[in-house]
Formats: sequence, C-alpha cells, structure tokens
Amino acid sequence: MALPKQADDFPAWYQAVVRDAGLAEPSLAPGTMVIKPWGYAIWEAIQRAVDDRIKATGHENLYFPLLIPERLLHKEAEHVEGFAPEVAVVTHAGGEQLEEPLVVRPTSETIIWATYAKWVQSWRDLPLLYNQWANVVRWEMRPRVFLRTREFLWQEGHTAHETADEAMAETLRILDDVYLDAARKVLAIPMLAGRKSAAERFPGAVETFSMEALMRDGKALQSGTSHYLGQNFSRAYDVQFQGRDNELEYAYATSWGVSTRLLGGVIMAHGDDRGLRLPPALAPRQLVIVPIYKNVEERARVLEAADALASDLVGVRVEVDERDEHRPGFKFNEWELKGVPMRVELGPRDLDEGRAPVYRRDTGEKEPWALADIPRRVSTTLDNIQDELYAQALAFRDEHTIRPSTYDEMREFLAAAEGFAIAPWDGDPETEAKVKADTKATIRCLGREPGGVDGACIVSGKPAAEQAVFAQAY
Amino acid sequence: MALPKQADDFPAWYQAVVRDAGLAEPSLAPGTMVIKPWGYAIWEAIQRAVDDRIKATGHENLYFPLLIPERLLHKEAEHVEGFAPEVAVVTHAGGEQLEEPLVVRPTSETIIWATYAKWVQSWRDLPLLYNQWANVVRWEMRPRVFLRTREFLWQEGHTAHETADEAMAETLRILDDVYLDAARKVLAIPMLAGRKSAAERFPGAVETFSMEALMRDGKALQSGTSHYLGQNFSRAYDVQFQGRDNELEYAYATSWGVSTRLLGGVIMAHGDDRGLRLPPALAPRQLVIVPIYKNVEERARVLEAADALASDLVGVRVEVDERDEHRPGFKFNEWELKGVPMRVELGPRDLDEGRAPVYRRDTGEKEPWALADIPRRVSTTLDNIQDELYAQALAFRDEHTIRPSTYDEMREFLAAAEGFAIAPWDGDPETEAKVKADTKATIRCLGREPGGVDGACIVSGKPAAEQAVFAQAY
Repeated sequence: MALPKQADDFPAWYQAVVRDAGLAEPSLAPGTMVIKPWGYAIWEAIQRAVDDRIKATGHENLYFPLLIPERLLHKEAEHVEGFAPEVAVVTHAGGEQLEEPLVVRPTSETIIWATYAKWVQSWRDLPLLYNQWANVVRWEMRPRVFLRTREFLWQEGHTAHETADEAMAETLRILDDVYLDAARKVLAIPMLAGRKSAAERFPGAVETFSMEALMRDGKALQSGTSHYLGQNFSRAYDVQFQGRDNELEYAYATSWGVSTRLLGGVIMAHGDDRGLRLPPALAPRQLVIVPIYKNVEERARVLEAADALASDLVGVRVEVDERDEHRPGFKFNEWELKGVPMRVELGPRDLDEGRAPVYRRDTGEKEPWALADIPRRVSTTLDNIQDELYAQALAFRDEHTIRPSTYDEMREFLAAAEGFAIAPWDGDPETEAKVKADTKATIRCLGREPGGVDGACIVSGKPAAEQAVFAQAY
Repeated sequence: MALPKQADDFPAWYQAVVRDAGLAEPSLAPGTMVIKPWGYAIWEAIQRAVDDRIKATGHENLYFPLLIPERLLHKEAEHVEGFAPEVAVVTHAGGEQLEEPLVVRPTSETIIWATYAKWVQSWRDLPLLYNQWANVVRWEMRPRVFLRTREFLWQEGHTAHETADEAMAETLRILDDVYLDAARKVLAIPMLAGRKSAAERFPGAVETFSMEALMRDGKALQSGTSHYLGQNFSRAYDVQFQGRDNELEYAYATSWGVSTRLLGGVIMAHGDDRGLRLPPALAPRQLVIVPIYKNVEERARVLEAADALASDLVGVRVEVDERDEHRPGFKFNEWELKGVPMRVELGPRDLDEGRAPVYRRDTGEKEPWALADIPRRVSTTLDNIQDELYAQALAFRDEHTIRPSTYDEMREFLAAAEGFAIAPWDGDPETEAKVKADTKATIRCLGREPGGVDGACIVSGKPAAEQAVFAQAY
C-alpha cells in the first residue's frame, strides 16, 4: 500500500490515493466512475456547505429533467457549438426509435430557459433564484477521475433578473458568498478568483468568473464558475417580461456551478506522501481511536475506555477502530491515507498513566495528552487543523506564485508548471495562444474588473490591458 | 384558482393541486416533470428523513454511474425481461456511434452487482451496506406526475450478505426501521406492509415486500419496496466469496427504494378540497403570518410585530407574507392550497387586543390566541397537527377497509375502488387474475410470512393459502 511520492510522479500519486483511500474507482461504463463511500461522504459535506450558502443567499432548489429535446440545444449558437460535440444522445426508448432524439444534459441552460419562458411574464415574476443538484454527462475524450469524467455530480444555479446590474451582482454574490466562502471555511483551499478571458469563457456567457486553486504539483484547478449570461439565453428562448415601464424586455441571466471536481481539488491541494489530508469540516471521521492490546483482557479494558472516550467527544465525528484482523501500525497508515485529521492511540499503559499519544495528520506531530483533557482539547485542535491546512495551502501558493519581470522568466516557470505567474497582458487572444503554445499554460483568470493595469504586456511589449494569472491547468 | 372537488373528479383535483400549489409541472421532454421549489423542498424533507434512517441502520451512501453497458442488463433473465422494454438507450456520444449502447439506468442492480464481483472476495468483505440517491429513467407509456414519470428521483439500497437469514433480516429492517418509521413519523401516512404475490414481485427478486398507502379516492399507492434477491444477482454477476468454512459461496442480496412517488402519496393521502395538507415534519413553511393593514402606518406597525413574532418562533419554519400586491383573503387561500399547517392573521386590532386568530390547516379551525402565548403553543400544536393528520388518515383507512364475507361483496367494493379488502386467497395466480379482470383490483400485499390463514379462498372456495389485501392501485 506504499504510495508513489508526489515529487516522483504526481499523477501516479493521485491515482493511488483515489484508489487506496477508497474515494472512487473507474466504473464499467468507460470514462465514468463509482464514487465510493469515503469519497461520497466528503462530497456530502461539500454539498451541505454549498447548499447551506445557496439557501442563505435566497435561492431555492428545484429539479429539471435529465433528458433534453435535441432542438432546444440548438437555439443558442455559441452554446450549441460548445456542447454539441460532447453530448450523449438517447435515440431509442421503450423499444422504439424516438421521433426526436433526447440529449443527456451536459448543463441545463437550454431546458431551463425554455421553461422560464412560461414562468416569466412580468417584472413581478423576477428574480428567479433557482438551483438544482444533478448529474450531467459530457463525453470527455481524456477522462480522469473527479477532474474530468463523462458523468459528474454538481449543482447548477440558474437565475433570471430584471436588470443587467442585478444579474451581475448575483454572479458575484455567488462567487463571493457561496463559492469562495465555502472554499475558505470548509475546503480550506485558498482561491484566486476573477474573470475569464474570452477563450476560456463558458459557451454563451458574456462574462465568466472562476475560482482557481493551486494543486501541489504546481498546476491550477478551475474549481467553480459563475457566469453572467446577459440576454443571450433570454433572447434565444424568448424570455420576455413586461417591465415597470410596461415595455417588453428580455430577462438577464446568470448560471453557476461547482461539481465533484472539488474532490480532486481537496485531494491535490492538501494531500502529501502519506495520502489524503482532510480539513476537519469535510472529514467523514474527524478522529479515530486505535486501541492497542495484546490479549483479550487488555482488549476488553482498552475498548471500554475507548468507547467511553468516544462518547465524551460530543459533536465530533469519531470512530473506534475495533478491527481485530489488523495491527495498530496498519490502522495508523490506513487512517493517515484516508486523511483523518486526528488519532488517539490507546493501550493499557496509557490507561495506567492517564495519558495517550494524540496524532495530528496536518503536521504529523504526536504528543501525549492527559486523557481527562482530550474531550476539552479536541474541538479546538480540529479548528486549528482546519486553519493550519488553509495556512499551509496558502503558503504553498505564495511560494509558487511569481510576478515575473521578463517573458523568459515567465516562460520557464510556466513550462515547468511551477505555479501561478501574474503579469500584464495586452488582451490579445493571439498573445494568450502564444503563451499556451510555448508553455502549455493558459490564463486562469483576470481581475474582477477589466483594466486597472499599467505598463507593457509581458509577452508582446504592447500596452497592457489586463493583469492576468497564467498557469498550467487541469 | 378554485380546485375541482375530490368527490367530483379526483384525478382533476390531483392535477390542479400539483399545478396550483407549485409542486411540479410537465416538462418539455415528454413524460418527464419539472419538480418546482415547493415540491422539491418537500422532497428534501423526505430525503432527510429517509437518509437519516438509512445511515442510522449502518448504511453508507455512494454513487454508481447513470449509464450502464447494455450487456450488463442481459445477465439476469427475469430482470432483463422486466426492464428491457422500458429502458432509454444512448447510442451516440461525442459525435460518434457507440460500439456498445449504454442504457440509462432504470435501477442499478446490474452495474452494482457487476462491480460487487470485484469488491467481494471473502466473508470478511461482507456485508456491503450501500445506498445511493439518484435519478432513474423508465419509459412509462402512461406517465403521471410524481406517480409514474419517465424520470424520477429515488434512493436505491443494494446490500450483499453472507447468509440468506442475514439478507432477509436486512430486507425487513429497511421496511420497518427506515420506510415504515419515516412514513409513520414524518409523512404521517399509515401503511399496510407485507409480501408481494409472485405476479407483483420485482423482476429478479425471491421476495418483494412493499408498503401500501390508501389514497383518498380509495386507491392504493405502492409507496416503497424492499426486495430479498437471494442469490439471483450474485449468480448472474458471479459474486462469490470464500466463506468461513473456506468454501466458495454466492452472496445474498437485497435492494430497496423509495422515490418522488412519495410526494404523490402525501398529496393524495392528506389533501382535501382546499388543497394540500402538509404534515409539519415535511412542510417547507410550518407557519405563515399574514399581516392585515389598510394604510402605510398600519403596515409598518403590523409588519414590525409580525417580524418580532416570527423571530420568537425559534425552530419553526415561519414566513411573514409581506406581499403588497395580494389581499389577505388571497394569501389565506394560497397558503391553504400549499398545505402550510398553521396561519396567524395579524392586524392592528389584534395588536391592540393582544391576541390574534390562529388557523389550523388540518382541522380548518380558527381561534384567537393571546399573542404572548403563541411562541409557547406553536411547537406543541405542530406536533398535534402531525398526529392529527396521521389519525385522520388512519381513520379514513379503517373506514375504507373491509373483511368481506362473500366474493360478491368484495367484488362490488373493489370495482368501486372503495379501499382495501382483506380476505383469504388460495394462492393461485389465476384467482388473482380473475379478481383483476372482475374489478381492476390487484393484491397489494400478503402477510409477512406465508400462510397463517384458515378457511376458504373468498374467490374460489378452495383452501386458503394466504391472507391477501386487495385494492385498485396507482
């Protein structure tokens, strides 16, 4: 069960952690995955964090169907161009060929906006602030578990507004109050957030905002997007409303999503050579008690004490690892691999002495704690671990972020996938394409507002239009 | 917004409630539905109730893919016969025809048992106690919102066990501790539970157990099923393990599910001519405060008091209906239609007198409560309403259950869809078929254990083999 080292072969490390920690495995339908219980429990914690924030910002959940009549996909020109090549199509059902093929949703703007046409008549019907939790299918050519699978789970929010300003405010509220807040407080991942360049924009969006995390191999992971869609979809699906001035107007739209891809982010932002390191807010088990014994008498005594300790840990997700078929060392390794934040090792001598070794997964430190103090100290320590993982990820990102003074410096840094390079860019798609050709890096995001940068483009030397964050990315 | 009366046209009443209460609507893909926010919030409450109980009984959630290679479907003979006619098939994806078509899961036994073959080697790997929340697609020819839609949401549990006894115990534990407990305490629906006859069994099951609710039109609704699958799927997918005796053995299986169909059950078990009546445990809003005012001064005063009252109602899902564009009478009707259990009507005179009319949706009673008492009395009253709705549904069922002494009596009762008829049955499928031909009624369930009945079959006069519950059903 020895993992490859991150420094030796990061992709092999990732695959091994996903498999050995019981997070997921490739499924029998090519390019898809089974999300296994440990991985799914982490996903449930992410869902809760995101769903709570979606509701706290005034949104309601609903559910639109999986299958979309093909004609609906073809109404928004950029959107169909973006998604048509990767859809899965149902052509037969109930033993017969369908008159009209049904597309398995790759995202739901099309069917939702076709439906909003019925729901929106007057400005009084607005805003619509809706979200759904759903599975989507995109026929990825190079599938990779959690990061790019042919089916994934996500939430997709779809809102409709009276004005452009209101829709833009919504786009940013989701980015800030839902995604960045959950990333900061629950996933413990520092994010860079900003606008996408035109080349990286969602098909059909006027502006796409994303949050970008840095993985421990120096590559970026786009971790969530929030799109301002302007009137593109309301025009395509004819969603008009009578305004306060009695004029007919097209509604303004946003859409936004995060997905099971975030699991890949958690693994690669926090993991180390011993395996996963889970932020306590996400960990299905926050503390494991490993009993240590040599015979049945010791076993009975230690397990009784372990169970008593576990029940004293009110509000902590705790497990006593009672398995007889494994030795303590095996259990230590396994729970470290699975990323459990804390471990208490409890044997007869510890009970005699009234103290036991307590291990922290984030720092790898182990120190003896008085048994009587453990219940009081655990929740503070879990908070510390949550903060420490964020601090470590932030320090890593700071160490792997440069503001290069020459294109040579930037090119070398990016080609080696060493992290984020922040530099002025002339705003020209050709310049962006040149960086990609030279280094495989893309623009991860720009500032929130256009402009606001002086000086010359680091690549072309022309006047800079934007401050850009470049990196290789998943 | 006047609803058809239940007694005049129950199907029309159902459709109108679903539409006017904002529960769901037909979607653009034929036979599918959009579950709207009010309906989805009820579903979320059902999910929480069921998921809590699934986890409390030792199960973990995971997630298997939507798309199943077609060959997997064809391994269990009865199962394929049952489901092949109603599957939707993906034949194209990523712009190309697939080498092997993919079936959109109608249920997941096939892909799950094909995967369990990898997960189960030894008795130490058992039991597997897994569940997933997912969407499934079945190409229903006569779709009906919530009750029979081409896509629906559900949970499906799939467990694997060492012994037949253990698997049968699991089958019944799910029925009792998860489904019947949630139905009783959360949905407030009395259920009859028992075995299915062979004709009504799940394709591939050895025994199917179901819980059956009585709707207010006298028809039964199958509301949840738990299947003992024996070794049918382990043999079909070659899931063998080394037993404690070192012999290879096939695992024993169960599967079980409840779905968005339960929403239809809640509507039709509790609803009345004014609309939905929601059990407080399910209600997205448990209490609505409707402010009553004639001018802006009154409005300000009343809304301030309403907000203060709302914030005193700790732990209650409460809304102050601040909409200016509707009159109080409109609001009363709308919240009654949506099934909100309690309403407080609050005007300036009520504030002066220190008391306000409090309305209960379950009984239709309205009485003045001292304002100061409201916070203290609400949670008890919500508990009462929860109990009262159960009691009313139970009384309705008792009034609509007969133990007929002649087949004539039973035939007349069943043909008129008056409810449940409980009678001895000879166990012969032809007798069952005759009842169906005569009355449209089917056997909803039998006793939990076979036999245990004396006397003669009510239909054939032959010796009875089972006590059977007959009813027309959705």
